[in-house]
Amino acid sequence: MKNTLITILSFVPIIATAQTKNPEKLVQYVKPIIGTQRMGHTFPGATVPFGMVQLSPETDTVGYELNGKYNPDVYKYCAGYQYDDKTIVGFSHTHFSGTGHSDLGDFLVMPTVGELKLNPGTADKPGSGYRSAFSHQNEVSEANYYKVKLDESNITAELTTSARVGFHQYTFPKSDQAHIVLDLMSGIYNYPDKNVWTYLRVVNDSLIIGYRQTNGWARTRTLYFAMAFSKPFKQFGYRNYSKREVYGGFWGQFNRTKNFPEIAGRQLRTYFDFNTAEGEKIKIKMAISPVSMEGALNNMQVEIPAWDFDKVKTDGQQLWEKELHKIVIDGSKDDKEDFYTSMYHAMINPTIYMDADGQYKGLDQNIHKADGFTNYTTFSLWDTHRALHPLFNIIEPTRNADMIKSMLAHFDQSAEHMLPVWSNSANENWCMSGYHSVSLIADAIVKGNAPFDANKALDATITTANHRDYAGIGYYIDMGYIPDEKNGNSVSSTLEYAYDDWCIAQAAKKLNRMDVYDTFFKRSQNYKNVYDPASGFMHPKLVDGTFRKAFDPFTTINQGFIEGNAWNYTLYVPHDPAGLIKLMGGNKRFVTYIDSLFSYDLPDKYFAETEDITKDGIIGNYVHGNEPSHQVAYLYDWTDKPWKTQDKIRMILKKMYKNTPDGLGGNDDTGQMSAWYIFSALGFYPVAPGSDQYAIGSPAVYHAVLNLENGKTFTINTKNQSDKNVYVQKILLNGKVLNSYFISHTDIMSGGEITFVMGAKHI
Amino acid sequence: MKNTLITILSFVPIIATAQTKNPEKLVQYVKPIIGTQRMGHTFPGATVPFGMVQLSPETDTVGYELNGKYNPDVYKYCAGYQYDDKTIVGFSHTHFSGTGHSDLGDFLVMPTVGELKLNPGTADKPGSGYRSAFSHQNEVSEANYYKVKLDESNITAELTTSARVGFHQYTFPKSDQAHIVLDLMSGIYNYPDKNVWTYLRVVNDSLIIGYRQTNGWARTRTLYFAMAFSKPFKQFGYRNYSKREVYGGFWGQFNRTKNFPEIAGRQLRTYFDFNTAEGEKIKIKMAISPVSMEGALNNMQVEIPAWDFDKVKTDGQQLWEKELHKIVIDGSKDDKEDFYTSMYHAMINPTIYMDADGQYKGLDQNIHKADGFTNYTTFSLWDTHRALHPLFNIIEPTRNADMIKSMLAHFDQSAEHMLPVWSNSANENWCMSGYHSVSLIADAIVKGNAPFDANKALDATITTANHRDYAGIGYYIDMGYIPDEKNGNSVSSTLEYAYDDWCIAQAAKKLNRMDVYDTFFKRSQNYKNVYDPASGFMHPKLVDGTFRKAFDPFTTINQGFIEGNAWNYTLYVPHDPAGLIKLMGGNKRFVTYIDSLFSYDLPDKYFAETEDITKDGIIGNYVHGNEPSHQVAYLYDWTDKPWKTQDKIRMILKKMYKNTPDGLGGNDDTGQMSAWYIFSALGFYPVAPGSDQYAIGSPAVYHAVLNLENGKTFTINTKNQSDKNVYVQKILLNGKVLNSYFISHTDIMSGGEITFVMGAKHI
Repeated sequence: MKNTLITILSFVPIIATAQTKNPEKLVQYVKPIIGTQRMGHTFPGATVPFGMVQLSPETDTVGYELNGKYNPDVYKYCAGYQYDDKTIVGFSHTHFSGTGHSDLGDFLVMPTVGELKLNPGTADKPGSGYRSAFSHQNEVSEANYYKVKLDESNITAELTTSARVGFHQYTFPKSDQAHIVLDLMSGIYNYPDKNVWTYLRVVNDSLIIGYRQTNGWARTRTLYFAMAFSKPFKQFGYRNYSKREVYGGFWGQFNRTKNFPEIAGRQLRTYFDFNTAEGEKIKIKMAISPVSMEGALNNMQVEIPAWDFDKVKTDGQQLWEKELHKIVIDGSKDDKEDFYTSMYHAMINPTIYMDADGQYKGLDQNIHKADGFTNYTTFSLWDTHRALHPLFNIIEPTRNADMIKSMLAHFDQSAEHMLPVWSNSANENWCMSGYHSVSLIADAIVKGNAPFDANKALDATITTANHRDYAGIGYYIDMGYIPDEKNGNSVSSTLEYAYDDWCIAQAAKKLNRMDVYDTFFKRSQNYKNVYDPASGFMHPKLVDGTFRKAFDPFTTINQGFIEGNAWNYTLYVPHDPAGLIKLMGGNKRFVTYIDSLFSYDLPDKYFAETEDITKDGIIGNYVHGNEPSHQVAYLYDWTDKPWKTQDKIRMILKKMYKNTPDGLGGNDDTGQMSAWYIFSALGFYPVAPGSDQYAIGSPAVYHAVLNLENGKTFTINTKNQSDKNVYVQKILLNGKVLNSYFISHTDIMSGGEITFVMGAKHI
Repeated sequence: MKNTLITILSFVPIIATAQTKNPEKLVQYVKPIIGTQRMGHTFPGATVPFGMVQLSPETDTVGYELNGKYNPDVYKYCAGYQYDDKTIVGFSHTHFSGTGHSDLGDFLVMPTVGELKLNPGTADKPGSGYRSAFSHQNEVSEANYYKVKLDESNITAELTTSARVGFHQYTFPKSDQAHIVLDLMSGIYNYPDKNVWTYLRVVNDSLIIGYRQTNGWARTRTLYFAMAFSKPFKQFGYRNYSKREVYGGFWGQFNRTKNFPEIAGRQLRTYFDFNTAEGEKIKIKMAISPVSMEGALNNMQVEIPAWDFDKVKTDGQQLWEKELHKIVIDGSKDDKEDFYTSMYHAMINPTIYMDADGQYKGLDQNIHKADGFTNYTTFSLWDTHRALHPLFNIIEPTRNADMIKSMLAHFDQSAEHMLPVWSNSANENWCMSGYHSVSLIADAIVKGNAPFDANKALDATITTANHRDYAGIGYYIDMGYIPDEKNGNSVSSTLEYAYDDWCIAQAAKKLNRMDVYDTFFKRSQNYKNVYDPASGFMHPKLVDGTFRKAFDPFTTINQGFIEGNAWNYTLYVPHDPAGLIKLMGGNKRFVTYIDSLFSYDLPDKYFAETEDITKDGIIGNYVHGNEPSHQVAYLYDWTDKPWKTQDKIRMILKKMYKNTPDGLGGNDDTGQMSAWYIFSALGFYPVAPGSDQYAIGSPAVYHAVLNLENGKTFTINTKNQSDKNVYVQKILLNGKVLNSYFISHTDIMSGGEITFVMGAKHI
């Protein structure tokens, strides 16, 4: 029980630090609807910070068609919800936030009245199935609360959550044909055979338990559930849409389609029937578990023992208040909505992946007990190592350390003996390039936030970095670069490995393991091997050591890069901007190069190839909607034109983030885009996680207080701040003039204040 | 660890009781090959008593075709092996023994040399796949040992087991292309979509772990494994025969078809490659678990930590010696082979279904820990309640009590709140009629072998018997019979319920719950409601209380009976032969009726309908190969012609049981046919389990000693015994003349001796 208690306590809201007396409610500024239109891929539903349950409406759940047929809508519906849609299919319990690949969407629940329809029907004919039309006028989307009126049935649906339990409240009209449909076929990335198996057991007239096993993006994933109804159902049944299974015995013994308490199969939809009075509320608690049905039941009992919807909503919103108050800013309402929605989106992933009793399913498919940490999953590390985890090292150091402990457990359980690349529900998705786990580990070690066996963690980074069979690492080790013939991302991977190796070197230095430092610092210089002075770009290099002749620096297709073209990726040497500048011909050429990136008018034909973003996600040829350029605007700090950083940052903040459904220019990428916003709005950014250094930009806030876990505060003041006064005239750190454009992690964590004196002209 | 130790200790062989000094090795008389030809459905492979692993060759693994297409071969291959076949596909780890329905066949292993073939190929072209020709000359089949030479590869395969681990020993020729194929697609009852999911993880170069989940006869079943090789494999790989699944990420990162350590999918075959010297032995330990991969690994470590094949074989054979010595008989070699092979077949099922640490998967699909008992599955209760469990109450009382504890756990975990009908690997197969669990429970309570909460067990029998929705019970309760219109087995189910209800009454009486006794004794008389004095048979009765006009007492089709015609089933009132005799018109008519059953020459057209048996399983119209008539020959004991019982029993023993591959006239039915043999050969039979009474037949043995768990012995002596002297002239029980044709359970369990004086003429 000890672990259970710890887990409960960790969710007790602790609000109001010494620095925020009578604090303003910040949750009012969270607009989950931001990013739900076009390619933001966020969801409008309810969740607590880092919740295992993320309960949200699906407006469609299209499938990826197998046999080579790609359905582009599978991308559109990564989060299950598109703002422009007119119908809601139902409410499911798990969602990715802001990803460019999809999965999840488990346990879709939909209330209906009238004739029972077990098929969702189509968007153009919502009455043809259980799907319902809705309008945004009748929709409320807050942190941990979602409400919508379903036009077909006149049912009002309300959703809230605890960490592991989704709480539904449906207000029905009078009906003797009220139904709750539980669609166990529905899912996101729902190709026809995604469902491997489902099982459901009716324990009594108001409690069912079960599980669903899927072969989705997570190859082999099982999610268990326990679902309690506030009112007993009068009858229940199911339909099996798969003809590919058997159930032995004599069917005459039982009627197994109605009120038969064990339901199993590949493709099942189930229903539960009620009589309802006008305005009667039927509530549902849906607890999930990665471990077992018993685990789900225990999660329900521990987290939501009663039926008080408002209390669950309020408790969850208080958890958000606690998180949001870690950074208290002054600014306009619009600014606050952008900022706190960014804070909200930054704290949705990674997600808790552990029962209330500490048990979780490991990558090895065995059940483990987390020993002294909370286990997390949903690590989109290619994205989030850049700014999200550095942000956590400031405002969520305990959680960030737990995330790293989760990654080290993953390593211990890995058949390949590798740290996670893209960890998803006890699976490795092997998505995107690099071994950026090492960045998180190095950043934590270097910044002194490593309450784990740091030497063992360093060993894991080394083992991962030396996995010769993985994505060209063998060539990289032997030749200093990945030959173009051997790997489709030869250049970007070489660059990313070089940065990752530098991270390993930094951690090794901190741990005084200088042999490791020497080896990996040397490897970190490999970025120089793919720079072609002739083209002036990072450039695909052949096995024979020559650079490839056919080359187009604007396209992302077949040029040796991923999610970025040569023009952008050439600037990807976050760990050695000074070396890069030298390599590229010195300060002046370098400044011109970045300038041209922002000013170049990329022809439409190139835009069409750029993944995961809308055209709004691009400024010139600078692609903010994808991550490889996230440090680019800060690189001017290493030149004689740091004011250009200030100028660009304020422009990007304005152009790329708006407090509207279409306010995100590309996928939020499980919080990385939001973390970029938070850092940049505060005035600094971690260009090279793994160092303790932040590069100064131009703050967009008027004032901000960082309430740190160590009890200290770090205050950001501005003078003469305005939309036009984007240029930093002077910086005072704790009252002393700062003579560089860099501050350190220690500067922040020691507490104190920084004051930016702003002006309309650069100095 | 306490449970682990208890489990280990329970397998330490304890041989040689006081009564059997320098005992003859009885295991020599076990011929597992008996019954492998035609419809016996036994298997020739290796197992310890009641082993969870039953490791045996498959000669074919045909599928049941879906969409209404029944493949008759699915019945033929219930045990995976048919003696007349010329090829072996491989060796799998789980088998039913003697069933009429099929499932299992998990984890097929096959060694090959030369070109890698992952497809089994066809029986007519064994070289076309990994399948091999073999001959019975090169085959050895003993208790817990099987050996065969595979003609294709010249590999000698040897198999032995512990309770939870299969141990393979393959002697290879010299080869640089030696393979071990692990076919995770293969299975018995292998319809195309039986495989739901498989997972495999290569831990290191000589250990793999994984699981397979199936939708077979057991609807939703997962079996985990751990497989260790005595020699590291040089490489490994797999092929996925399903095109219906996805695996995310970039395939370029790894070559995932060769040496990639995580394999998952629906239809997988895997291989492991070796170089072998001439005569080199590669050994494999395959441990299974119903709980987890870790459970399988632990089972291996606990049961077979080393690589000593001969020791494992010997240990297992000593376990058999211990069991076989519970009844030591004198007789011819043929008689001993029949008898001890019957003992062997009687002790294969039910099977242990629990890890060495006491954990098992329950019917509710949750993991449980068996508290103070060994958990069993594979309960074919419609068959085995008749004689197998009564036999266990004599020679295996502790096991029988554990089996009942397993059934009570099943009840506690049952969504339907019912005792098991046909329990299979944490599933209820709902196969055959009645609720015969209550017979086992009553028999144990009445015979004083109930080391469990007997009142709680009685409550479970009552709850089960009152499940109105199940197979006509509601009608039976309300109307005293099941109307023909409502259920296809209306008459046989009415009869079976009546017997079962009498069992409940007997248990209630023993527990002094006379209200229950009264209710259920009254119900037990319901058999009278389906007897039609006009036809002289138990007869389908309509809702309106009249007997159905269309009626054929010889056919089993659509007459209200299952696996028996009216002529046989009319005699199925095991609990009240006296009442039945009266009902049927008295002693003389009754004797004539049974006589005619044996003498009637059943036309072929009726034989063709008789399920699960060969024509040898029928004597006249008496169907020994199916169970409903098993008590019939003993019913003369209730008439003035008990000598006719003696005559018939000796005839049936001779006709129905032979020590040859085709020696069984029908399915062994998980030991029920063998238990009938054992009782009858000893000279008595439990006509009505639930009473403490045994009816006397005619012993076939010359002498027998029952070595009881309580330390006592019960000795069976004969005088003037011979094949011709089948008639009992006099019976002495502990030296006193027995003046009836019945003895009691107490007579046996108190120890002592019974002497049968035999003669060629009846008295």
